[in-house]
Amino acid sequence: MATLFKDSLTVVNVGIAAFADNVRAAGGTAVSLAWQPPAHGDRDAAWALAEMSADPRVEAANEIAFARFLEAQPVLVDIATARDALPAMEGGARVIAHAGPPIAWSAMCGPMRGAIMGAAVFEGWAPSVAEAKALLDANGVALMPCHHVGAVGPMSGIISPSMPLFVVDNRAAGNRAYSNFNEGLGKVLRFGANGPEVIARLRMMAETVAPTLRAALAHTGPIELKPLMAQALNMGDEVHNRNVAATSLLFRRLAPALIESNAAREAIAATLAFIAGNDHFFLNLSMAACKAMLDAAAGVPASSMVTAMARNGINFGIRLSGTGERWFEAPANPIDGLYFPGYSIADAAADLGDSAITETAGVGGFAMAAAPAIVKFVGGTPTDAIHKSLSMRAITIGVNPAFTLPALDFAPAAAGIDARKVVDCGVLPVINSGIAHREAGVGQIGAGVTTAPLDCFVGAVKALAQSVREIGAKR
Amino acid sequence: MATLFKDSLTVVNVGIAAFADNVRAAGGTAVSLAWQPPAHGDRDAAWALAEMSADPRVEAANEIAFARFLEAQPVLVDIATARDALPAMEGGARVIAHAGPPIAWSAMCGPMRGAIMGAAVFEGWAPSVAEAKALLDANGVALMPCHHVGAVGPMSGIISPSMPLFVVDNRAAGNRAYSNFNEGLGKVLRFGANGPEVIARLRMMAETVAPTLRAALAHTGPIELKPLMAQALNMGDEVHNRNVAATSLLFRRLAPALIESNAAREAIAATLAFIAGNDHFFLNLSMAACKAMLDAAAGVPASSMVTAMARNGINFGIRLSGTGERWFEAPANPIDGLYFPGYSIADAAADLGDSAITETAGVGGFAMAAAPAIVKFVGGTPTDAIHKSLSMRAITIGVNPAFTLPALDFAPAAAGIDARKVVDCGVLPVINSGIAHREAGVGQIGAGVTTAPLDCFVGAVKALAQSVREIGAKR
Repeated sequence: MATLFKDSLTVVNVGIAAFADNVRAAGGTAVSLAWQPPAHGDRDAAWALAEMSADPRVEAANEIAFARFLEAQPVLVDIATARDALPAMEGGARVIAHAGPPIAWSAMCGPMRGAIMGAAVFEGWAPSVAEAKALLDANGVALMPCHHVGAVGPMSGIISPSMPLFVVDNRAAGNRAYSNFNEGLGKVLRFGANGPEVIARLRMMAETVAPTLRAALAHTGPIELKPLMAQALNMGDEVHNRNVAATSLLFRRLAPALIESNAAREAIAATLAFIAGNDHFFLNLSMAACKAMLDAAAGVPASSMVTAMARNGINFGIRLSGTGERWFEAPANPIDGLYFPGYSIADAAADLGDSAITETAGVGGFAMAAAPAIVKFVGGTPTDAIHKSLSMRAITIGVNPAFTLPALDFAPAAAGIDARKVVDCGVLPVINSGIAHREAGVGQIGAGVTTAPLDCFVGAVKALAQSVREIGAKR
Repeated sequence: MATLFKDSLTVVNVGIAAFADNVRAAGGTAVSLAWQPPAHGDRDAAWALAEMSADPRVEAANEIAFARFLEAQPVLVDIATARDALPAMEGGARVIAHAGPPIAWSAMCGPMRGAIMGAAVFEGWAPSVAEAKALLDANGVALMPCHHVGAVGPMSGIISPSMPLFVVDNRAAGNRAYSNFNEGLGKVLRFGANGPEVIARLRMMAETVAPTLRAALAHTGPIELKPLMAQALNMGDEVHNRNVAATSLLFRRLAPALIESNAAREAIAATLAFIAGNDHFFLNLSMAACKAMLDAAAGVPASSMVTAMARNGINFGIRLSGTGERWFEAPANPIDGLYFPGYSIADAAADLGDSAITETAGVGGFAMAAAPAIVKFVGGTPTDAIHKSLSMRAITIGVNPAFTLPALDFAPAAAGIDARKVVDCGVLPVINSGIAHREAGVGQIGAGVTTAPLDCFVGAVKALAQSVREIGAKR
């Protein structure tokens, strides 16, 4: 202490910047670290964090949830039609599933409304988009999140009863997840387009691609998705916004089986051309695999592990393992993106889609180091990509040895978001995303990188703390 | 000067290490740089270098040769049978082409002899391997390098009249290059295996795969190879020892065309299965593309650009643009590799094959930063891979903007080896390679990384200096 006051002071200030001003005013040298209070200063959340910090019940629960996540073995086992696979749509009930947390028809963003109207036309519930709107305005279709029927869908994420689904089983725990098929780029339903060519493509996917792929699957047998994703991560994909390697590897598996199947040659030709023409074909499988891995981790009381992140174009929602099926929502953050010529952020819908399930599972933005081409696309460098992947380690329970990143010397990718850590250090999950036009019918206008909003995690941490209190005394 | 002798000395010694000893003995501090004289102290080569250093005739010639290399646009235009495509094999003459510079039957390494005997059986010139050996011992088959017939082949590189070839045209300059088809891994002719299953596979390739691919090419039209290679370099391939991305991307192009072609369904099934089952299928196309790019740069008087590097399993040979078709040879360096269980360097044939044409064109080992999985395989790290790619910049004329390396912030790969620079700085071209067993019939026993031997470049530089002297006075 005597020495401290004898020497001249050089201070590193962790906390309110004004402290450093005082040191400087007194003739000392001070450096202020960039600092902000946990939970943006939300007192209840800070108390919740303090309660659960190193709480052995939360730690043990996270260990269980994270182990179930790591042990998951998602396998593509079948192709099915939504009406046959999803009890909510049994018999072709007038039900449509959408991306993100629950939201009313009247509150939905433009592209989601456009996509739902298109789906109603596709189902034959309305002869035109205008009549579909009238039907929906009259509450003639039940709407619910994909996550509520065990499914995920990118962007608007629309699933209606006649659409084909990938059926993905987690062989380790027996749980099942679904996703719709990827339509490709350009004017597509998931970005809100609903013209005749969009409906015709949906029909072709249901009538030709789906049964043909099903015949191929009978020849390949179930396809393990985790090794395929792992290989793609070593080939420049992050299996969210970049799927060219995964799509190509899957195509190499499917094509020989297609030709050996009993499908008609014309159907095989159409199916091969459809998959070969779409670098994003694998995205929906990646998403279903991620959901299967994360659903295995769901429902562990006291676990602060995030098991879903999803956006409905208005709000961003998350679920924690320890709080079950409850959504914690906040307005979606804007996307730092590159826009197609003629468009700007003023034209953009808010962050949209269930595809943030990939980041929840430690790929996508979390594995950005694997896909430097994505940051380059939005003006960054491979070093930025590496930093994004490294920074995610601050908010995860651990790493996933199944998914390695070549640029990080094949280190495993960070995985298993701990909502406590997000609130505590303020580092937000990085999310890669496409950008939809805010009006129905226009489609994609760009792609970019965004983050999950902090307030979802603040709300979730408070609710988790409450549920932990209800469990009883700390053991 | 007065100051120099007043202060205590700290010396950086560039040159013979004994100079530093003297400084130290006198009480000074000295650090010796790792240094060796150019051309390993070969006085004639050093004079040749001095003569050609910054010689405007050499510089201008290299500019021309390198520009022709960069402008090349290799395109897969056709599949042909060697007897129809190569004048030397017209009418099925008893001619076999092999990898590397010229070598006599009696001097060849085991795997090359094994492969040539297999090819003789495949052609029906001998009913058994033993009788093929007798035929070859009696000089019953003319042997010549693939490079002498405008072709390249990996490892033994065997091309006989009935084998199918890829036909690759350089659209920019009109020159044409060929390569044989890749057989896959395991017991294959190129590694010296010649049993019945090897011959049967060669037959299937000629009778089924080749005509079926030809039918597909009629549907795709010519396939540009440079963009495909560029994309693969951004997906973890270096298009020499790693071709999984390039093969998958090519497969995605071919499969839809195959099913739309008029080929029989069984032939399509066999062809798809054959390509899908071989991650190295693209290698031979990469090699033909590289040869087409480099042949465009050949024959520019006074140019010190290397236009071919090739190994026959005994000697490593190079060609320079300015010395035309002459080979400069030296014993091949050993391979720092990983051996399959049960094998060691004692079992290995020397560095073998025309595949070093890829490194000559600035991919393969030169693009190692793109494929960290390869260095990892032999015990290195992604940092080693980056260093290998960076160090090649010391010996090249420039960089190739068509081939970018993600790990180097998408910097272009070094390309266009300048033989003067190799001799001057002693940095040797890095070469990725498979390792063949030294005896005929065994096959591949490992893979690894080696370098081109300096003495090829020393000999080439001396000969080039002589030819430049003959051109006349410096302008």
